[in-house]
Amino acid sequence: MTLETIRVNEIFGPTIQGEGALIGQPTVFVRTGGCDYRCSWCDTLHAVDSAYRDEWHPMTPQAIMMQVEILSGGKSLTISLSGGNPAIQPLGGLIELGRREGYRFALETQGSLARDWFKKLDVLTLSPKPPSSGMETDWQKLAECVEAAGPETRTVMKVVIFDDADYTYARDVAARYPELRLYLQPGNHTPSHPQEADSAIDMAGIMERMRWLVEKVTTDKLYTATVLPQLHTLIWGNLRGV
Amino acid sequence: MTLETIRVNEIFGPTIQGEGALIGQPTVFVRTGGCDYRCSWCDTLHAVDSAYRDEWHPMTPQAIMMQVEILSGGKSLTISLSGGNPAIQPLGGLIELGRREGYRFALETQGSLARDWFKKLDVLTLSPKPPSSGMETDWQKLAECVEAAGPETRTVMKVVIFDDADYTYARDVAARYPELRLYLQPGNHTPSHPQEADSAIDMAGIMERMRWLVEKVTTDKLYTATVLPQLHTLIWGNLRGV
Repeated sequence: MTLETIRVNEIFGPTIQGEGALIGQPTVFVRTGGCDYRCSWCDTLHAVDSAYRDEWHPMTPQAIMMQVEILSGGKSLTISLSGGNPAIQPLGGLIELGRREGYRFALETQGSLARDWFKKLDVLTLSPKPPSSGMETDWQKLAECVEAAGPETRTVMKVVIFDDADYTYARDVAARYPELRLYLQPGNHTPSHPQEADSAIDMAGIMERMRWLVEKVTTDKLYTATVLPQLHTLIWGNLRGV
Repeated sequence: MTLETIRVNEIFGPTIQGEGALIGQPTVFVRTGGCDYRCSWCDTLHAVDSAYRDEWHPMTPQAIMMQVEILSGGKSLTISLSGGNPAIQPLGGLIELGRREGYRFALETQGSLARDWFKKLDVLTLSPKPPSSGMETDWQKLAECVEAAGPETRTVMKVVIFDDADYTYARDVAARYPELRLYLQPGNHTPSHPQEADSAIDMAGIMERMRWLVEKVTTDKLYTATVLPQLHTLIWGNLRGV
């Protein structure tokens, strides 16, 4: 077992997964600290901006699993590895350890860094960032991520959509990966600042973008797409830890 | 090909599936007329109560597929067969016809009547009705439905939850069918009457029941359950045809 430590920002749950392929499923989240991207609308700056690095704690895989098992009551469920970009952390040992205890692992990353341990995941969500993020997609790296996950892992794409340019980008992703399921998620314009208690969200705006997205997808006959909001945002607002 | 006609209440879409296993996926809905149940909180009385039977039109499978293809633009997608109780209609021929054209079929029924054509479905959602419905579950019939679908069809359970008694009932379903995924859906207290234009919904109440349900599921470690609201209700209210 590797002795490498993982930079952990927060471990919380169980709660339901609010997004994507496993929406609604009971999950414990392990959020790692650190990211190679700086998306303009980042909703987890506390796990991205190094100004928050005193909130990131080095933990061994064993210490992480001990914490997860306290939260789960010792009954296995899905562990979602998120960030930041969890792919920059050495997570292979954690996944091996957890799987031996019956846990399932999902990971979400922008697809900027391929890891050979992706193939040990149950679900890999690649969420390349559209133009509104201000980031550039390295399509070669994204392809390497799909390749690294291989046939045993369920790999899906997820794109956050704020505007028409983002939607055009998502169609490009669909064209490049017709065999992978594509999740389209309306952007949330109102992520709270990590230090703000305010959890108000623009519910009407999110629902308006949902209707707009459904209209786009059905008009364009993009029937391989799945359109889902961030359910946790609707239920709990922008509160952390739920 | 069967010449039997099917009593159709409405055909609409494509829009996204708002519930359960295929939530968010582009879908055309074929809603049949007639039901052997009278749930107290029924949200599709126009497809249940025979007072609305002049809205139910006998259609051949060919006529139904012709209408679906106009709506889908001739590109295959998932057709959701709902009602009322679609299991009381002769749908085997329609499913065969549509599948030959590349369409996928999902069906939702309370599980009161098993049909040998269940095995031709891609997804069978059995939604036995909890105590708040005022209906009694015939567990033997439900078992026959699972049996009829067989191993090729993805069979899932879905239970609508209004209160503690409903939740206890859902736990019983989970215990009887540990191998099937169970979807828990908070009940909607405000389905509009078919003749009312009002589409206002009790959003706060639905979200409060979501939080309550997530708390129940995580406290009880019912990790095989998936908790999802009716997404279409959140997006469009109780409007029909979306």
